[in-house]
Amino acid sequence: MLEFSKEEYQARVANTKAKMEERGIDVMLVTDPANMNYLTGYNAWSFYVHQMVVVSLEHEEPIWIGRFMDAIAARKTAWLDHDNILAYSDKYVQSHERHPMDFVADVLKEKGLGKKNIAVEMDNYYFTAQCYMSLQKGLPNAKFEDAKELVNWVRIIKSDMEIRYMKRAGKIMEKGMGDAIDFLNVGVRKNDMAAEIYRTFTEGTKEFGGDYTSIVPLMPTGVDAGACHLTWTDEKYKDGDIVIFELAGCYQRYHSPMSRTISLGKPTKKLDDTVKITLEGLNKVIDFAKPGVTAEEVEAVWANNLKKYDMFKESRIGYSTGLNYPPDWGEGTVSFRPGDKTVLKENMTIHIIPGMYYEDFGVEISEALHITKDGAKPLADFERKLFVK
Amino acid sequence: MLEFSKEEYQARVANTKAKMEERGIDVMLVTDPANMNYLTGYNAWSFYVHQMVVVSLEHEEPIWIGRFMDAIAARKTAWLDHDNILAYSDKYVQSHERHPMDFVADVLKEKGLGKKNIAVEMDNYYFTAQCYMSLQKGLPNAKFEDAKELVNWVRIIKSDMEIRYMKRAGKIMEKGMGDAIDFLNVGVRKNDMAAEIYRTFTEGTKEFGGDYTSIVPLMPTGVDAGACHLTWTDEKYKDGDIVIFELAGCYQRYHSPMSRTISLGKPTKKLDDTVKITLEGLNKVIDFAKPGVTAEEVEAVWANNLKKYDMFKESRIGYSTGLNYPPDWGEGTVSFRPGDKTVLKENMTIHIIPGMYYEDFGVEISEALHITKDGAKPLADFERKLFVK
Repeated sequence: MLEFSKEEYQARVANTKAKMEERGIDVMLVTDPANMNYLTGYNAWSFYVHQMVVVSLEHEEPIWIGRFMDAIAARKTAWLDHDNILAYSDKYVQSHERHPMDFVADVLKEKGLGKKNIAVEMDNYYFTAQCYMSLQKGLPNAKFEDAKELVNWVRIIKSDMEIRYMKRAGKIMEKGMGDAIDFLNVGVRKNDMAAEIYRTFTEGTKEFGGDYTSIVPLMPTGVDAGACHLTWTDEKYKDGDIVIFELAGCYQRYHSPMSRTISLGKPTKKLDDTVKITLEGLNKVIDFAKPGVTAEEVEAVWANNLKKYDMFKESRIGYSTGLNYPPDWGEGTVSFRPGDKTVLKENMTIHIIPGMYYEDFGVEISEALHITKDGAKPLADFERKLFVK
Repeated sequence: MLEFSKEEYQARVANTKAKMEERGIDVMLVTDPANMNYLTGYNAWSFYVHQMVVVSLEHEEPIWIGRFMDAIAARKTAWLDHDNILAYSDKYVQSHERHPMDFVADVLKEKGLGKKNIAVEMDNYYFTAQCYMSLQKGLPNAKFEDAKELVNWVRIIKSDMEIRYMKRAGKIMEKGMGDAIDFLNVGVRKNDMAAEIYRTFTEGTKEFGGDYTSIVPLMPTGVDAGACHLTWTDEKYKDGDIVIFELAGCYQRYHSPMSRTISLGKPTKKLDDTVKITLEGLNKVIDFAKPGVTAEEVEAVWANNLKKYDMFKESRIGYSTGLNYPPDWGEGTVSFRPGDKTVLKENMTIHIIPGMYYEDFGVEISEALHITKDGAKPLADFERKLFVK
């Protein structure tokens, strides 16, 4: 079931260990499901219970630890020796008497890792406050520190095979966004629109089947179009509605996101003007982005363009994207905003999304970009404009 | 946009405050998105950044705190006075220089809550280890304790309106599972099967549009059918495959889950026997469950039936279900297993899922049940058997 060669997974582990050594980390407890997948291939919807991959400098292979029933999927989807797949009993699940991290602490002690420098993913959804408390209690002689997205930063440069997957996700995006805009119309229930989006994106293309996306279709509409993270209701689209689609093609957990804005009926001047300014800025950013420039320099291109119109955007205009699980298709590394001095490099993949959000109105036109040798290329080839129906 | 009356939300807050008083808690920091929605109506896919609802005994209304761009959705979906919707700047998002909980700590101090007994949801996905560290640093004079799912336990008894939503989800389930089994066939790509499941469940019925489910379609197949949390690939179904569908109807974030097992071709004796035993036990559990019995007594009915066949199941056979957001449609309260002495009460809603998982084979037949005045009634009316195609 491996999606990449065993050698590619092993190279990822080696890169992770090299970063650990640099930072004096002996043991990494990887709880981010995307990082777990990246290092081992493990892929299942089991992150609603605690699980992790342990990377230890003293151990050649990572060790998967999870729930008893999920060890079956681990043996099927991960490249690891089955001796390195360890499972805890169901009595640890959602209990106040014992915590899965008690089991993890026991494993680490047995493996002689109880007194090591241990890095944990302090701000990951799947490493809760209780995880940390239970680990500290179970391993009183260990020294803990924040991994600060160590594996995510290894992931930020994609391999050729990953880029190939991202491009397949881009193909799914092209088809899906086209079908979505075709289906959209006055009188259609919003949930039926979402149903069509799910259908077309999951169907994918004849060659590549679609995977589930880490964020559901975001489709704020009309006076709510500025509330960018709204999903849908079963109300119908009305004449004059502004519709935002923030969607992603997904292939084998790799995402290529994109947003477009559609006007049902003749656009207002305010909408036309905001789209014009957004497109102008976005196009300048795409022209500017390339290896060697920093994230904040990219953002400045956008911000300076806005300034011409006496406008300002409070939020970042993008982030690294690619491999992830719910609730986010961002990778938690670079943010395109003032102060972020990350230097762009070849084979980074980023989502530039300069959304313009207001109390009663909004515009989103965005692109997922592949940083190439000397520029930036959209992963999906789809007309960049305001659609009018 | 409110899904329930303002009075119903206010009663929920009052019930929460009563439990807080009982336990000597002054302030509850609610980070579970389902609990946030339950208390305020807030509903958006924004839980990938930090956010919370503060319930304080000294303050009449809860206070919503979240990201600047999401405050727009909070003003649109929550019943709160807009003065009680507070937003942090984007510079707090995914940064190692400042954390959203620094902002929260400042708000609590300003409101005179910096020295209180504060309960936090220690093992919730959306309360990370870093959240707890930052809060403790920002509020050195507060006393923290684990809320131990305080709001979840308030939620465990559903209101009449919530039961109505659950039944609508059950109707969506009936239609969706029927369509899914009709579509399934040898030669169909698994992702196309998932596409059809998404389409039919999101379409819902003519009366009630479907919402997104907190878990994606789980559909382990063939020799992988025992790996219960696998999703799909773009491979095709083969003759002889055992197919498990673990799905949910969802209406306004309320789930009615259900599983069925389908045999593509003549079932083997092993499959037939396992289904027979599963159905016998499940039927006994449904007959037994009613107000006044405990969760462990319900599980014992299942376990004793298995014993007749010299069989044993390691994992719990069910949990409370209803309102939730990814990654789980369980509500994190009762677990049907030995030691859980929760007494069933009228208007609880539970998912009984006695899955039988093996290394090369699996069976899942499950029901979401509404605990009525004197029994338990499936929320979806759907034939309980092995389907053969």
